[in-house]
Amino acid sequence: MAKPKVFEKPIGVKDYLPHAVARLRQIEHQALACMASWGYEQIMTPTMEYYDTVGVASATSDEKLFKLLNKRGTTLVLRSDMTAPIARVVASLLKDAAFPLRLSYHANVFRSIEEESGREAEFYQTGVELVGDPSPEADAEVVALAIASLRAAGVDRFKIAIGHVGFLNGLFEETLQGRLEEQEELKACLLGRDYVGYREKVKSLQLSEPVQRVLEGILRLRGGQEICDQARVVSANTTAQASISHLCEMWDALKAYGVSDYVLIDLTMIGDFSYYTGMTFEGYAADLGFPVVSGGRYDNLLTQFGRSAPATGFALKTTRILELIGDRDEAEADRVLIGYDGGGRDEAIAEALRLREQGAIVVTEKMTADRAADLHASLDRYALQGAVFNIFKSYVGGGVAR
Amino acid sequence: MAKPKVFEKPIGVKDYLPHAVARLRQIEHQALACMASWGYEQIMTPTMEYYDTVGVASATSDEKLFKLLNKRGTTLVLRSDMTAPIARVVASLLKDAAFPLRLSYHANVFRSIEEESGREAEFYQTGVELVGDPSPEADAEVVALAIASLRAAGVDRFKIAIGHVGFLNGLFEETLQGRLEEQEELKACLLGRDYVGYREKVKSLQLSEPVQRVLEGILRLRGGQEICDQARVVSANTTAQASISHLCEMWDALKAYGVSDYVLIDLTMIGDFSYYTGMTFEGYAADLGFPVVSGGRYDNLLTQFGRSAPATGFALKTTRILELIGDRDEAEADRVLIGYDGGGRDEAIAEALRLREQGAIVVTEKMTADRAADLHASLDRYALQGAVFNIFKSYVGGGVAR
Repeated sequence: MAKPKVFEKPIGVKDYLPHAVARLRQIEHQALACMASWGYEQIMTPTMEYYDTVGVASATSDEKLFKLLNKRGTTLVLRSDMTAPIARVVASLLKDAAFPLRLSYHANVFRSIEEESGREAEFYQTGVELVGDPSPEADAEVVALAIASLRAAGVDRFKIAIGHVGFLNGLFEETLQGRLEEQEELKACLLGRDYVGYREKVKSLQLSEPVQRVLEGILRLRGGQEICDQARVVSANTTAQASISHLCEMWDALKAYGVSDYVLIDLTMIGDFSYYTGMTFEGYAADLGFPVVSGGRYDNLLTQFGRSAPATGFALKTTRILELIGDRDEAEADRVLIGYDGGGRDEAIAEALRLREQGAIVVTEKMTADRAADLHASLDRYALQGAVFNIFKSYVGGGVAR
Repeated sequence: MAKPKVFEKPIGVKDYLPHAVARLRQIEHQALACMASWGYEQIMTPTMEYYDTVGVASATSDEKLFKLLNKRGTTLVLRSDMTAPIARVVASLLKDAAFPLRLSYHANVFRSIEEESGREAEFYQTGVELVGDPSPEADAEVVALAIASLRAAGVDRFKIAIGHVGFLNGLFEETLQGRLEEQEELKACLLGRDYVGYREKVKSLQLSEPVQRVLEGILRLRGGQEICDQARVVSANTTAQASISHLCEMWDALKAYGVSDYVLIDLTMIGDFSYYTGMTFEGYAADLGFPVVSGGRYDNLLTQFGRSAPATGFALKTTRILELIGDRDEAEADRVLIGYDGGGRDEAIAEALRLREQGAIVVTEKMTADRAADLHASLDRYALQGAVFNIFKSYVGGGVAR
């Protein structure tokens, strides 16, 4: 295998130049400020966790975990999400903190990916976990906060699709009792949004005509609050019915938040995290083929860490949001360049300190008369100060690598 | 080897609870804002780098690098500093950007440590690199900016010790010509601040009395600008002389920045990064046994990435600064808790949205009359609103885990 060239970085990871970093940090800052105003407090956890604890508890498949050994020979993983580490903290450092707990985070997460896939091996998430509240109101709160955070981060046009793990589980339990393998195959079709495959699979199951009609019919269970009423008659299973009631309650609360225009119910949706136990949701922005936010309820994960509690939360895909809004131009602060020759140094430094006090971005540079003349010629705007050239100030827009 | 307990995290890494995160992010924000006002622009690089490129170029010894394999079988490292990754970016993505380049960063870095050492395996740094300017003024700028950043981050009492790799190299070259092993032994004593061991080593070398006096005398070369004059007569070696001239020029510029009270010259100081080629510095805060900032000039590192350029920079030890100023209490924003029973939900949500618009931190919670009564009893201050209990607001200070 060839050695990497000196200037190469690993496949699947990125460098971010100043323009992108400024945007990314703005998205992060605005989302976290929004979460803070809803009472969510930020925590940080280590990049590395034990494979046997957080690694296993995370919803990431084993072959997608980055693994390494510590000096003792114990297997560590680079965290693949923040939900499992936060569950660990809630059950340990915060074990005496009263529920409900509202926690937020901004963190990079890692997925070992096939190089050819073009997916990212390291990306940033900004999210929340609401731990200790099982109510539909708690789920509505995190969905409403996801919407508020996206808007705060500058994403305007998007839709949030809400589903419920219990509806499909109840329906399949009722119609395909005990046929677990076939239930999984149908769920795999829905997870991959392969609706043609789903219909063919349903046909192949040799079910009674009414049952077949019901299973095909759920593909139409996408829309507004009316979907709740339609879904109620689809399955008499108690799990399915309870799920629909939960979604109805959520919808009412989302109306109170004034955000129901952003939301649709999609009962074919399956969250891609295996630990989800209830409501799940995904947000899609206009023109972007992958979700900018995803979340859901996970009432069993905390149990794995020894402190049973219901929980719900979401993660904004911060780096994807950057791709979405990255193009927009915004006004940038002017930069002042103060050039000086030998005799002007102290004056230049003092002037720079004065201007920085006033909020300006100022760079000082010792330069030759040639360099000064070049700058004068190349800069758009400048103001010459002082004698022939002891110090001069140039007002230049922007920095490196726009 | 025993399996880790479910709630354990790897040794040497930390969880940060909300109070600590708020402080840490404040330090980060204030330092980066200061760096921005001096014209430094933030970049981000991946957590993982190739071992053969950045891993080898970094100044971290091989056994302290965290290594892992990607799917292709190539060895990756978790970055151990930000200087080598930034050198890679300057030589690749920024290869057409004109010098001087001013770049800043905030990043976690990793060192594989012995579990018993009590040192951290993951910690945060906030720093800058000034690339393409060999002048003493460039070195003075980064030292002055280190001081300004520390002050912006809330560190008031500290001293910056400045040395120069060239002074000791020149002096040893002159006095111990060719005796490289003995030169390294003396440097190792100075690096470890083992001055007793240094004196004994000097004595054991069987040197002429004047040479022995010179080598012992450098232990007294710590102080203000007067050290420059004293050092000039110690060694006639041109490298040593040039180093002293460089430090003198730096000192003059630091006076112009108005920060020379923070600075002392310490010609026994050896930066702990092998890539340093010139001026090095370390900052010590009162009451803390380890540096809160370290930096220096590295004029050869960029060459390894194919774009030769002089460079200088520093890293604030952000997590250490947190330890230093973590105790201080600051006013915290009040949090408003709006409790409601079934009938009050929509009103509570609307009131929460209103208060958040006004900048308040607001939590809503559906609760029973019992829970409301408990809260009334346990909270310091509250205001009851509405009828018997449809909604009530409580003003509570602080959040979890103070």
